[in-house]
Amino acid sequence: MLILMQPAATPDQVAEVLALLDSAGIRAHVHEAPDSLSIVAPHASQALKADRIEPMAGVRRVVSLTSPYKLASADAAAGRTVVDVRGTRIGGPDLALVGGPCGVESREQLFTVARYVAEAGVKLLRAGAFKPRTSPYAFQGLGVEGLRLLEEARREFDLGIVTEATEVETFDDVERSADMVQIGARNMQNFALLRRAGRSEKPVLLKRGPAATLEEWLYAAEYVLSEGNRQVVLCERGIRTWSDHARNTLDISVVPAAKALTHLPVMVDPSHATGRRDLVIPCALAGVAVGADGLLVETHCHPEKALSDGPQALLPSDFIRLVAQAGAVHRALQGPSLTGLWM
Amino acid sequence: MLILMQPAATPDQVAEVLALLDSAGIRAHVHEAPDSLSIVAPHASQALKADRIEPMAGVRRVVSLTSPYKLASADAAAGRTVVDVRGTRIGGPDLALVGGPCGVESREQLFTVARYVAEAGVKLLRAGAFKPRTSPYAFQGLGVEGLRLLEEARREFDLGIVTEATEVETFDDVERSADMVQIGARNMQNFALLRRAGRSEKPVLLKRGPAATLEEWLYAAEYVLSEGNRQVVLCERGIRTWSDHARNTLDISVVPAAKALTHLPVMVDPSHATGRRDLVIPCALAGVAVGADGLLVETHCHPEKALSDGPQALLPSDFIRLVAQAGAVHRALQGPSLTGLWM
Amino acid sequence: MLILMQPAATPDQVAEVLALLDSAGIRAHVHEAPDSLSIVAPHASQALKADRIEPMAGVRRVVSLTSPYKLASADAAAGRTVVDVRGTRIGGPDLALVGGPCGVESREQLFTVARYVAEAGVKLLRAGAFKPRTSPYAFQGLGVEGLRLLEEARREFDLGIVTEATEVETFDDVERSADMVQIGARNMQNFALLRRAGRSEKPVLLKRGPAATLEEWLYAAEYVLSEGNRQVVLCERGIRTWSDHARNTLDISVVPAAKALTHLPVMVDPSHATGRRDLVIPCALAGVAVGADGLLVETHCHPEKALSDGPQALLPSDFIRLVAQAGAVHRALQGPSLTGLWM
Amino acid sequence: MLILMQPAATPDQVAEVLALLDSAGIRAHVHEAPDSLSIVAPHASQALKADRIEPMAGVRRVVSLTSPYKLASADAAAGRTVVDVRGTRIGGPDLALVGGPCGVESREQLFTVARYVAEAGVKLLRAGAFKPRTSPYAFQGLGVEGLRLLEEARREFDLGIVTEATEVETFDDVERSADMVQIGARNMQNFALLRRAGRSEKPVLLKRGPAATLEEWLYAAEYVLSEGNRQVVLCERGIRTWSDHARNTLDISVVPAAKALTHLPVMVDPSHATGRRDLVIPCALAGVAVGADGLLVETHCHPEKALSDGPQALLPSDFIRLVAQAGAVHRALQGPSLTGLWM
Repeated sequence: MLILMQPAATPDQVAEVLALLDSAGIRAHVHEAPDSLSIVAPHASQALKADRIEPMAGVRRVVSLTSPYKLASADAAAGRTVVDVRGTRIGGPDLALVGGPCGVESREQLFTVARYVAEAGVKLLRAGAFKPRTSPYAFQGLGVEGLRLLEEARREFDLGIVTEATEVETFDDVERSADMVQIGARNMQNFALLRRAGRSEKPVLLKRGPAATLEEWLYAAEYVLSEGNRQVVLCERGIRTWSDHARNTLDISVVPAAKALTHLPVMVDPSHATGRRDLVIPCALAGVAVGADGLLVETHCHPEKALSDGPQALLPSDFIRLVAQAGAVHRALQGPSLTGLWM
Repeated sequence: MLILMQPAATPDQVAEVLALLDSAGIRAHVHEAPDSLSIVAPHASQALKADRIEPMAGVRRVVSLTSPYKLASADAAAGRTVVDVRGTRIGGPDLALVGGPCGVESREQLFTVARYVAEAGVKLLRAGAFKPRTSPYAFQGLGVEGLRLLEEARREFDLGIVTEATEVETFDDVERSADMVQIGARNMQNFALLRRAGRSEKPVLLKRGPAATLEEWLYAAEYVLSEGNRQVVLCERGIRTWSDHARNTLDISVVPAAKALTHLPVMVDPSHATGRRDLVIPCALAGVAVGADGLLVETHCHPEKALSDGPQALLPSDFIRLVAQAGAVHRALQGPSLTGLWM
Repeated sequence: MLILMQPAATPDQVAEVLALLDSAGIRAHVHEAPDSLSIVAPHASQALKADRIEPMAGVRRVVSLTSPYKLASADAAAGRTVVDVRGTRIGGPDLALVGGPCGVESREQLFTVARYVAEAGVKLLRAGAFKPRTSPYAFQGLGVEGLRLLEEARREFDLGIVTEATEVETFDDVERSADMVQIGARNMQNFALLRRAGRSEKPVLLKRGPAATLEEWLYAAEYVLSEGNRQVVLCERGIRTWSDHARNTLDISVVPAAKALTHLPVMVDPSHATGRRDLVIPCALAGVAVGADGLLVETHCHPEKALSDGPQALLPSDFIRLVAQAGAVHRALQGPSLTGLWM
Repeated sequence: MLILMQPAATPDQVAEVLALLDSAGIRAHVHEAPDSLSIVAPHASQALKADRIEPMAGVRRVVSLTSPYKLASADAAAGRTVVDVRGTRIGGPDLALVGGPCGVESREQLFTVARYVAEAGVKLLRAGAFKPRTSPYAFQGLGVEGLRLLEEARREFDLGIVTEATEVETFDDVERSADMVQIGARNMQNFALLRRAGRSEKPVLLKRGPAATLEEWLYAAEYVLSEGNRQVVLCERGIRTWSDHARNTLDISVVPAAKALTHLPVMVDPSHATGRRDLVIPCALAGVAVGADGLLVETHCHPEKALSDGPQALLPSDFIRLVAQAGAVHRALQGPSLTGLWM
């Protein structure tokens, strides 16, 4: 059951509804969107009829939840969710850009990249301190030392930090250092990790698994949401198909398809989606044009020396150009005569 | 072997090179690109050395062809090919738009659609007279009567006609009526049909098969090119994957990947790629942003009554908006500071 | 509408039912299965009620056809179809084996292979005279000369000939020489070719397209059946997926899934399905164990010299072993206590 | 570096080689196969030359390891690994069968199934106490209570217990109760979980991820092996493709392809691979015929009441038949004239 409150509803009115639900043994969450507040009670319909709640003060409307992913569903919120990461708003009118190297390799490497990322006007820095790797013998990241370097970079360049948590065991460390915790594609159905992220106070960037359907992706988000954390951003990063010209197939149409089903913001990662530097910029622009709320892009000062994913990292000059082009496409779609045509 | 002629090469100089090749028993084709002319001789290297040709008058350079698809390969031409369809240039600086219903159903239906397509400023009309259908019991198109209606529409609305040839038997009819002959996705490896298209004087729109790799697609183009027809345009229309939110998966990154390998223009068909009306416009804009040379879009005056593919056809008002938005994105990428960054 | 006749129905009784249908303007086909006879009238239900026909002499039961592929559907026949190819029965209790090289390359090559195929007790020889090839520059087969050699091999070794028709233009030639005409995977939706095959008197081996669903495959069979030819055998040959240890992915479960939907026999081609010699025998045995009616296997006297598909062709000694092993697995499943458990 | 010891090598000789490696700072593992013993030292080649070790007493041969998955690679062992689970040997000449319900639901349900599983002669019982579920609102298993019931079933019916560990947090509990710990498909790249399994003394059943290549699967095994646990059994359970007649596509050819690359045993799970009861038996038999070392099959006394995966669970009578048929196929391939033909 979804209880949409009136814009002018008072905290007391909200508290009264929650008290009623509680008295009926119903677990409920308050969901705050930019200009609305709603109360979500996944399993309420059996215990309490809508006409018991609808007349209450401050209540605008009661909607029954039929979607299987109750909290992620578009009808579980009165509007689109905007996630704030250290001042950058993902899901609002602006395009959110996140740039940085695949992994933290050294202070020098991280700072060199962070400097030109910041100078390009980008506010969020991505880099992994813990790296999930296919082979046990591959570089697994600098770990806690990498987190320290990320914290330094935040102070030095005034950047928000987006970095991956790969396991429950080290989640606390990552959570402490990060402004946004990434759940990687291979962990999209690591339910223990999702539940832990759901108990975090930091926003979560949830990458789509390489073989996950849209529905499974939303269920994964539901794991996070159902634990209480409502700051979830989805990120398409390419799926596994037989098409062999790129490392993965960027499933571009999943962006508007997801936005039709969920109120959560959706970003695109063109770097992992293609694995080829020459395809990253065109695919990033495609992501903007298709309506993504932001881009997550890998860039490296010396891609040829990168310890991981070098072939897909943009050169500094390309990254700077991408920022300009992405902005141009985004503005073109925001023109007065064009806005809101399909969204 | 690829012989690039100097821009100022005279017809006589070209003829001399051709005569030499002929005397050595080598089959050669002249390839005209917007601002250059080249001679392509696929199997010449064994019979004739480059240093026998390079000193000839008008010759700029001789390149050996190592790509397995010799004529489709980017290095088989001095520049990008531009295909002219009744005055609309596909592959040049302008975005080429093709719109129309899936199939010709009646004079009234076709003319209603053709009228708003033309009024939107689009110059090319698409509609099938012969329809390949999965079931033998489904509507197979109006056939020759449909072609007559398309010819009428051309006269009435001054539109170029793009229509599909489904078999060698009826190719002559289609070729006579069409300004551009489409080879559909399911026929991408119908080699007899490709060879027949290669002997046509009409430009060919070659759709990618739903399970074709980029390499197989270029080989299919090679079948057409190797018979002498150099006016080939590629069209991505979605591939078959397990991702189930849309009918097919639009493989958006194949556009820049193809343009890196071939000099042929590449278009995008967001209608078949998604099969869902609400995804067509965002995916069309993604196609423009990724660098496609044009769009092929289905639109129908009464999609709910369409005899085929109604759920993916844009309403008239949506089609008109798409034309405006696609133009806005295209212009955004052509801005002085942005042009040519990745292409 | 499907009219199942009684086992003892006389030809006159059959004729009477057909006359009634004809008088109502209904097109009907007689379908003979090993121990039953039925009349199939795809679009009869509107024009004629079942209770008008059911009381007629010799009629056992009238079934309405609800499957979209009316003639291919399991309920369109009283039992399983058995296709006879020069005395070899495909679809009955025996396992049907077809062996031979990918293509006819020379008299010597063909006869060497045909000899050990025949000596192994196999009755059907496969080899292509017309080869569909991805590249226009690859070996395209010996054509009509290859057909002559196949006819010679039939006489010399008393083998039935299975060979591919790749286009309508040369279908007459292939049909004349073949005992069974193969429609290749890439032509599974070449509808003109399917229709031509449907007007042939020769049995048809219909390979599954590399990206065809089971439903599309049955529709393709329906194209052949609806033209009058009821001797259709389906053949699974691997599908295109991202799994990269083999050329294709043998979709083994499609065999029992197809047999649940259609009365047509289903074979397995482990050679194209894997593309790797070391996987062919295990996958062939898997095909037998899963319930396939036969196997289509490539074998070559000198695989390393084969003009096409050498890496997947079995050596003579391996082919002979395969015949023994396939028989052993087949017999194991026919044991008195095991027969018919899942089929 | 792989050091193959002579069959007659004494423990002292083994200890001497290990001491040498240790003195050079090289981490090494002893790997015991049925009739051989080898020492595996993944990164030894830089530090120590083969000709320093080869002359040592008891050493037969030193092989350099070039495969990227060093311990899983076929050349990292002198023979095939046999994993012993409470007396059932997986990877030897016998076919290993594991049967049981998807999840433990109640004492009555578990014991009813365990009874007929045991009566059919099967020695290993599978059932999940912890269930990974796509939706957070779906039945997640009985947890520790389920483990207690499994322990009871072991005592009551003398069955080995195979059950899944879904997270590091509860691994200890599962490990204590299980005879073999399963790592599920969705956790195939949960590296923290793999590492924990690698430190277990219990054998591990490692399911292939639904979108994992053979190489990634072997790398996942390598994570377990590299922590010291050498008792790993691989299990193919279907991959995700566009083929829609079954829930997944059983990638049957991966069994012999895996056995060509690794010394580890390979099983097949036809239940998850198909998701359809009517396809389970034929696909199980295909698994036996293709050379799998065992089968993992779901069966339920009342599939229509199962809390998860009911549609794929075999009825008791079908399960009993499967055991008979699988044995018949297995014996057919072990016949004196047929043994070892392709393996």
